[in-house]
Amino acid sequence: MSSVLIKNGRIITASDDYFADVFVEDEAVKLIGDKLKVQADRVVDAIGQYVIPGGIDCHTHMELNVGAATSSDDFETGTVAAAHGGTTTIIDFATQARGQPMRAALDEWLARAEPKAVIDYGMHMIVSDLPDRWLPDMDALVHEGVTSFKFFTAYPDRLMLNDATIFKAMQRTGENGGFVCLHAENGSVIDYLVQKLLAEGKTAPNYHLLSRPPETEGEATHRVIALAEMAHVPVYIVHVSSHLAMEEIRAARDRGLPVFGETCPQYLYLAYEDYADGSFEGAKYICSPPIREQANQEPLWQALAANDLQTVATDHCPFCMREGYKGLPKQKELGIGNFSKIPNGVPGVENRMHLVYQGGVVERGWSMNRFVEVTSTTAAKLFGLFPRKGTIAVGSDADIVLWDPNRKYTISAKTHFMRVDYNPYEGLTVDGSPSLVMSRGSVIFEGDQFLASPGQGEYLRRGTYMLP
Amino acid sequence: MSSVLIKNGRIITASDDYFADVFVEDEAVKLIGDKLKVQADRVVDAIGQYVIPGGIDCHTHMELNVGAATSSDDFETGTVAAAHGGTTTIIDFATQARGQPMRAALDEWLARAEPKAVIDYGMHMIVSDLPDRWLPDMDALVHEGVTSFKFFTAYPDRLMLNDATIFKAMQRTGENGGFVCLHAENGSVIDYLVQKLLAEGKTAPNYHLLSRPPETEGEATHRVIALAEMAHVPVYIVHVSSHLAMEEIRAARDRGLPVFGETCPQYLYLAYEDYADGSFEGAKYICSPPIREQANQEPLWQALAANDLQTVATDHCPFCMREGYKGLPKQKELGIGNFSKIPNGVPGVENRMHLVYQGGVVERGWSMNRFVEVTSTTAAKLFGLFPRKGTIAVGSDADIVLWDPNRKYTISAKTHFMRVDYNPYEGLTVDGSPSLVMSRGSVIFEGDQFLASPGQGEYLRRGTYMLP
Amino acid sequence: MSSVLIKNGRIITASDDYFADVFVEDEAVKLIGDKLKVQADRVVDAIGQYVIPGGIDCHTHMELNVGAATSSDDFETGTVAAAHGGTTTIIDFATQARGQPMRAALDEWLARAEPKAVIDYGMHMIVSDLPDRWLPDMDALVHEGVTSFKFFTAYPDRLMLNDATIFKAMQRTGENGGFVCLHAENGSVIDYLVQKLLAEGKTAPNYHLLSRPPETEGEATHRVIALAEMAHVPVYIVHVSSHLAMEEIRAARDRGLPVFGETCPQYLYLAYEDYADGSFEGAKYICSPPIREQANQEPLWQALAANDLQTVATDHCPFCMREGYKGLPKQKELGIGNFSKIPNGVPGVENRMHLVYQGGVVERGWSMNRFVEVTSTTAAKLFGLFPRKGTIAVGSDADIVLWDPNRKYTISAKTHFMRVDYNPYEGLTVDGSPSLVMSRGSVIFEGDQFLASPGQGEYLRRGTYMLP
Amino acid sequence: MSSVLIKNGRIITASDDYFADVFVEDEAVKLIGDKLKVQADRVVDAIGQYVIPGGIDCHTHMELNVGAATSSDDFETGTVAAAHGGTTTIIDFATQARGQPMRAALDEWLARAEPKAVIDYGMHMIVSDLPDRWLPDMDALVHEGVTSFKFFTAYPDRLMLNDATIFKAMQRTGENGGFVCLHAENGSVIDYLVQKLLAEGKTAPNYHLLSRPPETEGEATHRVIALAEMAHVPVYIVHVSSHLAMEEIRAARDRGLPVFGETCPQYLYLAYEDYADGSFEGAKYICSPPIREQANQEPLWQALAANDLQTVATDHCPFCMREGYKGLPKQKELGIGNFSKIPNGVPGVENRMHLVYQGGVVERGWSMNRFVEVTSTTAAKLFGLFPRKGTIAVGSDADIVLWDPNRKYTISAKTHFMRVDYNPYEGLTVDGSPSLVMSRGSVIFEGDQFLASPGQGEYLRRGTYMLP
Repeated sequence: MSSVLIKNGRIITASDDYFADVFVEDEAVKLIGDKLKVQADRVVDAIGQYVIPGGIDCHTHMELNVGAATSSDDFETGTVAAAHGGTTTIIDFATQARGQPMRAALDEWLARAEPKAVIDYGMHMIVSDLPDRWLPDMDALVHEGVTSFKFFTAYPDRLMLNDATIFKAMQRTGENGGFVCLHAENGSVIDYLVQKLLAEGKTAPNYHLLSRPPETEGEATHRVIALAEMAHVPVYIVHVSSHLAMEEIRAARDRGLPVFGETCPQYLYLAYEDYADGSFEGAKYICSPPIREQANQEPLWQALAANDLQTVATDHCPFCMREGYKGLPKQKELGIGNFSKIPNGVPGVENRMHLVYQGGVVERGWSMNRFVEVTSTTAAKLFGLFPRKGTIAVGSDADIVLWDPNRKYTISAKTHFMRVDYNPYEGLTVDGSPSLVMSRGSVIFEGDQFLASPGQGEYLRRGTYMLP
Repeated sequence: MSSVLIKNGRIITASDDYFADVFVEDEAVKLIGDKLKVQADRVVDAIGQYVIPGGIDCHTHMELNVGAATSSDDFETGTVAAAHGGTTTIIDFATQARGQPMRAALDEWLARAEPKAVIDYGMHMIVSDLPDRWLPDMDALVHEGVTSFKFFTAYPDRLMLNDATIFKAMQRTGENGGFVCLHAENGSVIDYLVQKLLAEGKTAPNYHLLSRPPETEGEATHRVIALAEMAHVPVYIVHVSSHLAMEEIRAARDRGLPVFGETCPQYLYLAYEDYADGSFEGAKYICSPPIREQANQEPLWQALAANDLQTVATDHCPFCMREGYKGLPKQKELGIGNFSKIPNGVPGVENRMHLVYQGGVVERGWSMNRFVEVTSTTAAKLFGLFPRKGTIAVGSDADIVLWDPNRKYTISAKTHFMRVDYNPYEGLTVDGSPSLVMSRGSVIFEGDQFLASPGQGEYLRRGTYMLP
Repeated sequence: MSSVLIKNGRIITASDDYFADVFVEDEAVKLIGDKLKVQADRVVDAIGQYVIPGGIDCHTHMELNVGAATSSDDFETGTVAAAHGGTTTIIDFATQARGQPMRAALDEWLARAEPKAVIDYGMHMIVSDLPDRWLPDMDALVHEGVTSFKFFTAYPDRLMLNDATIFKAMQRTGENGGFVCLHAENGSVIDYLVQKLLAEGKTAPNYHLLSRPPETEGEATHRVIALAEMAHVPVYIVHVSSHLAMEEIRAARDRGLPVFGETCPQYLYLAYEDYADGSFEGAKYICSPPIREQANQEPLWQALAANDLQTVATDHCPFCMREGYKGLPKQKELGIGNFSKIPNGVPGVENRMHLVYQGGVVERGWSMNRFVEVTSTTAAKLFGLFPRKGTIAVGSDADIVLWDPNRKYTISAKTHFMRVDYNPYEGLTVDGSPSLVMSRGSVIFEGDQFLASPGQGEYLRRGTYMLP
Repeated sequence: MSSVLIKNGRIITASDDYFADVFVEDEAVKLIGDKLKVQADRVVDAIGQYVIPGGIDCHTHMELNVGAATSSDDFETGTVAAAHGGTTTIIDFATQARGQPMRAALDEWLARAEPKAVIDYGMHMIVSDLPDRWLPDMDALVHEGVTSFKFFTAYPDRLMLNDATIFKAMQRTGENGGFVCLHAENGSVIDYLVQKLLAEGKTAPNYHLLSRPPETEGEATHRVIALAEMAHVPVYIVHVSSHLAMEEIRAARDRGLPVFGETCPQYLYLAYEDYADGSFEGAKYICSPPIREQANQEPLWQALAANDLQTVATDHCPFCMREGYKGLPKQKELGIGNFSKIPNGVPGVENRMHLVYQGGVVERGWSMNRFVEVTSTTAAKLFGLFPRKGTIAVGSDADIVLWDPNRKYTISAKTHFMRVDYNPYEGLTVDGSPSLVMSRGSVIFEGDQFLASPGQGEYLRRGTYMLP
């Protein structure tokens, strides 16, 4: 592996902000110093640029079969797109089918990722079935680097666990050092509302929102926090979409509980008002929890600033609007005439860093430190990747992004690397973007030019969580 | 029916406090005036006494079969005891068995009560099974005077409804004018904990508390309030036992929601510390939600004072400690060696007024108005009995209690009228008690002397709720 | 004094709601009964009408000299107007000038009121100067029926007391049974802002609002609650105008503190948006605290409904817009070119009951009980007039209003009885209004016809407070 | 200046935690790398040790005249003691006397510090007098590196500013980039209570607490936050001592306000229970705000963990218990017979790092990152010293501490370096302590051996704040 010397950059970590040179060798950061005089295979001048740790998107769903459709990005297209936007690690979800041993699910997902990923990746485990005899499998997974488990309070048919099972699983992870992630929506009430709306002939995409009122998210968030409090484990709420759910997290944290919350670009930038007209174009915005009324956006931004939410991930799970794009079958169109058949999910992995930089740093005056913390460092700590990932420090993997604050970039499906025929942020111009992206010392993107190969990404056996 | 003139009393309603004479005729209050000169069959001098509306205990379980045992008071012994303590109305629960039409359940309960009750009684309906085709039965019941429905989030085997069903039922009552009562505990987690504790050999009565942590009550309280908010209906939480659950009610009310809470004497006076030793005597205190750590008591008293809780009822459901008392079979003893087999319930209907008077008026300086409001008026309004019951006003039923603030009374199983072989407040002396109790104009108790006959009580077809 | 029999009315108190006849004799209610057969000098048929206790406006300023101007209603015109709108008691403020003994201030105010008032009146004492040697005067006043004291945290030049003096006075009233009222605005910051705005040439009426941001009210409200908590006394916050101040009261009550709040029609109905244009017509709306942005209105209504605020009074203190109205000198016009010179105050005493009925009962579904409680009963209890005033009960003063729910009334300066040349609610039509108003058994208004004489009102020696 | 190579240490910043070598030259960090091969004048083996940024104590009072006494540590003894405990920067307070230009106060304080300090120091400015004509002096000070101003709501005689002046000063600092610190206690009420207690003969040291109830701190904290919110400036509350005051900060932060809070070791470790007996030994604990009931401690620790408080400083201001120690005059003894004469202040500068390490890392499981953040990094950012101080990064001053987690240290006045005859933590043994302390690359302590000279510390012209 070749060596690289990055000169004159402004290095940003979750806490630090200083000018220095960085020397990378053997995939890792070897030396940080003032005006380094060291031989390198390549010298990069980073003058005028931020040198930041590569982003970590801890919530993606590549090539996920959600029933009638499979998310359109596979581990190759998805990770290429991620890298283009400055993300150098993803954590995807191995999903246990009911009746399937968790280990088998993991193997299946690793087999998919291994030949394709161009950046490093870890796996969470989605638990959909947990008889007592399988509890030891959770312990085993923790030892193999799958140190986080996700449970659902929604989707009764496929994924929902009852409260006792979630509680039991929480107690087990409390013992084995695992970390608990929750999809918190009241699936029982939602399914009832879906059927009621459909029975009333309310089938357009916008009824998706009405079938999932914010109270269903707030309620379930409160509930799983209560379960975690009783089980004495930290809990991480994925994709917080509403003011209401966020307030539950804030209240728990005010009481000193180790409760964490993630939100996503779609909840920060998009709004129900974008699809309230009921046209089928609204299918672009269908994901769960739903993209909510605009009034929810600013409270979520404010909670990120105040550390009442800790991470921005994407829940990246794209589906095409039109059949035939790059040979893909019918996806969003499956839900014409029945919003509940629209595959749930939006693309985002490529633009997460763009959008948080723009909304946080440029428009709301965040420090670059907070940008790095929210997009990389905290995820690394919570999901057992720190300090290998999530910082720029001697010994860390050289997952480094040169972020150019003056490199304007206009988001568009015409130019994006994601394999999906629309971009929900179409036409939005951000003020800064990556000029160079490095994964374990190897330059994989220079501007818009992709320089890596499928399979170059490695599976990350993760350690146990570190509370940030 | 004879007439009665009550002279020189101090009349107390939920708001008023004044001296006047009250003339009762034809079961009702006919005249209130200053130094009334009117002929009456009987003249009672109430000098030095409070003249208050008879108490309403809106939560009792007479002769309730809970599986292996039946609560030891029937509608005769239970209502005699109630009357002795100044309660002139009860609202009991017709309980639908799964598969049983609600109307059939009502008939069954009315048949039990009708020949025995000595005071007036209404019926709530406990809904344990609600296929869509039975929704119209709820509307019919409302028209027949069963205007309140109770749902359980606990007891998965017998009574628990899932969230969707509760939500559906809430929407229906929102349409038919009914009122919603909730038993709020997370039954799923509780049942898991019960099995876990038993498996660990933890079988003594005090483990009952550990199987039902306050978070299971706080969680379910939050959940049902969220469901009610979505369904746009008022909601009444029965038997609030913990600081945590009360805080959920307070928070909802602060947001302007029509949420109400009831607590019971056992949560105001008794504590886990009373049965923490693990001896089987602790079975006296086993009910659900459990009697909690003492630290919960004062917040509940304070919430009553501040109107964050609105009523004190009893959840009266007595079981004898020893086989053979008045010929009754084994009851609490069924749970020797397994706390989960102890029939859940404590006696209270006779002493509710004593205990609220003592704890509220005497010890915490409440006004007599608040005493009346908490023990009678608010229940009358919420459960559709006002102004027939719950006040002393012209036209109201003459359910009148002369409360003597100087008539000390020592609570004891030796002297109480309840058919149960212990009293959890044994030995407690209260400063005041009823000197005379009148039900629809008929004197049914004078001091400790019972003067009425079984069957004298009438079934109350209740109207729809009035928000107080 | 003659007797009156009111037949067939629907009697409303803070808690009761029933049909009965009321017989009034010797200024008081003598008898309440069903179809009374009693001789009376006059029989009034109240069919279709509510029979309610006369309103109590516990915050008025008749003929108050505020420096350059004197409020335009005197005790005659002001109390006639009050009576017209259904208010049969006012509590005005004797105002101690600095250096003046409080007793002298009281005598001065009683001398003004005595020959003129047509309804009964009490007096609070505004304390502006409290050397230690005058503390015993507070005790004396309590014994003479001036049982409430008002302190200001605003108006440094005339009325503001420092925190230590307020605290000292609170401790003293805690000992002598007096009741504490607070005008809560941060006068120090406000005076600074006034000078700053004027120096910047910002002189139009609307800058009045900008000189008194809601934080100045929220802050002072929090502060005086903290002082009262330390002094262990109840505290009553007058004229709550902002969401922020109300939230402080709610939070204190949630903690169990005896804290009470009053709001006024101007804060419930009017808004900054009414005078934001900067024209001098805005002077109509100038009072302190200022009439705030509209977003404050609904939270105040909701707080009244939820009993987080307890009373609606008026802070009635009218000033004419134009010189010469009924011979009055220049008043609001004094502030042309300098908002700080506009005499502060708005009229309201005549329309308070109209406005609360309309906004509460008609538009927001309040019970009539709450209407009575908010406009009469709670003030009677807090200010030591209960049960003489504030209810319809045997023995109470016959201050009775027949409220006709179908008697539409359009508010207008052209027809109002207040001596002021504008009405801030000009043109508003309310659905109900009084058809007859009785003060101690004497009919003083029938519809719009005034039937009483100046001086008919009596001074009320008030008792100590009763917590409602 | 000589160079130093620190090998094999575990480097901790506010975010990072990794093993590397650090090379120091020309007072600063030059190079961080893996197994550095570089020539150095001195090589230090840090195996088994944490390499952390030197502590910053942003709240000290060296040789402060508080009226009858002067704090017993001067800038020499105080900074030597600081260094011994791992603190390499202090920020002391130049205190403007009333009538004195602020620049003169600064010169006076710099003259005291310059010849004596052994570590670097900055100066805040305490503003006690602020006529409008002196506002430009605040701007000038900001340009000269005094970028933080402290205002008092207590001590009416010497330091207290009224609310308008604080507000005015806040607005000015909002414009000139300065930072606002507040001593928040209600001085008006406190002075009243002091006089009242003394008049009642309550003169023992413990009455100090009773003269300053927690509500006086909570109230003033709420008030200054409201002023800052109106002035649109960040605000920093010094020495938070009570649960109540902390909750105000938490609530403000939940609303998204830039509000920060500091607490001190005395509030985390000591309690009223330590001096409640009333003996004069209690004078050891007299400081303001007072050391409170023990129940306040855990909420403060929890708030530090949750980032609701951000820094731990000392408010170091020692006074001797006995006359004659090292030739010093009577100090604490001045208050025999009158608690209000006891010079207020406790020692702490030497033990702050010990105590936070022990209480936070050892006993409550904090990460070392949080330890560094709370004791150094956040203060550096808020007070304009970052990244020169507060981190270990290339280019930063080489203020480095080797913290040995196994070097037990027993706190005692017998061995401490502070010039005061008692230590409030006497006898407490902590598990870890500094083995080596470096100030700008110069080793000034090795274990307990002092190696530097008076005057070696430099004055720090600080920049403007950076929100962390």
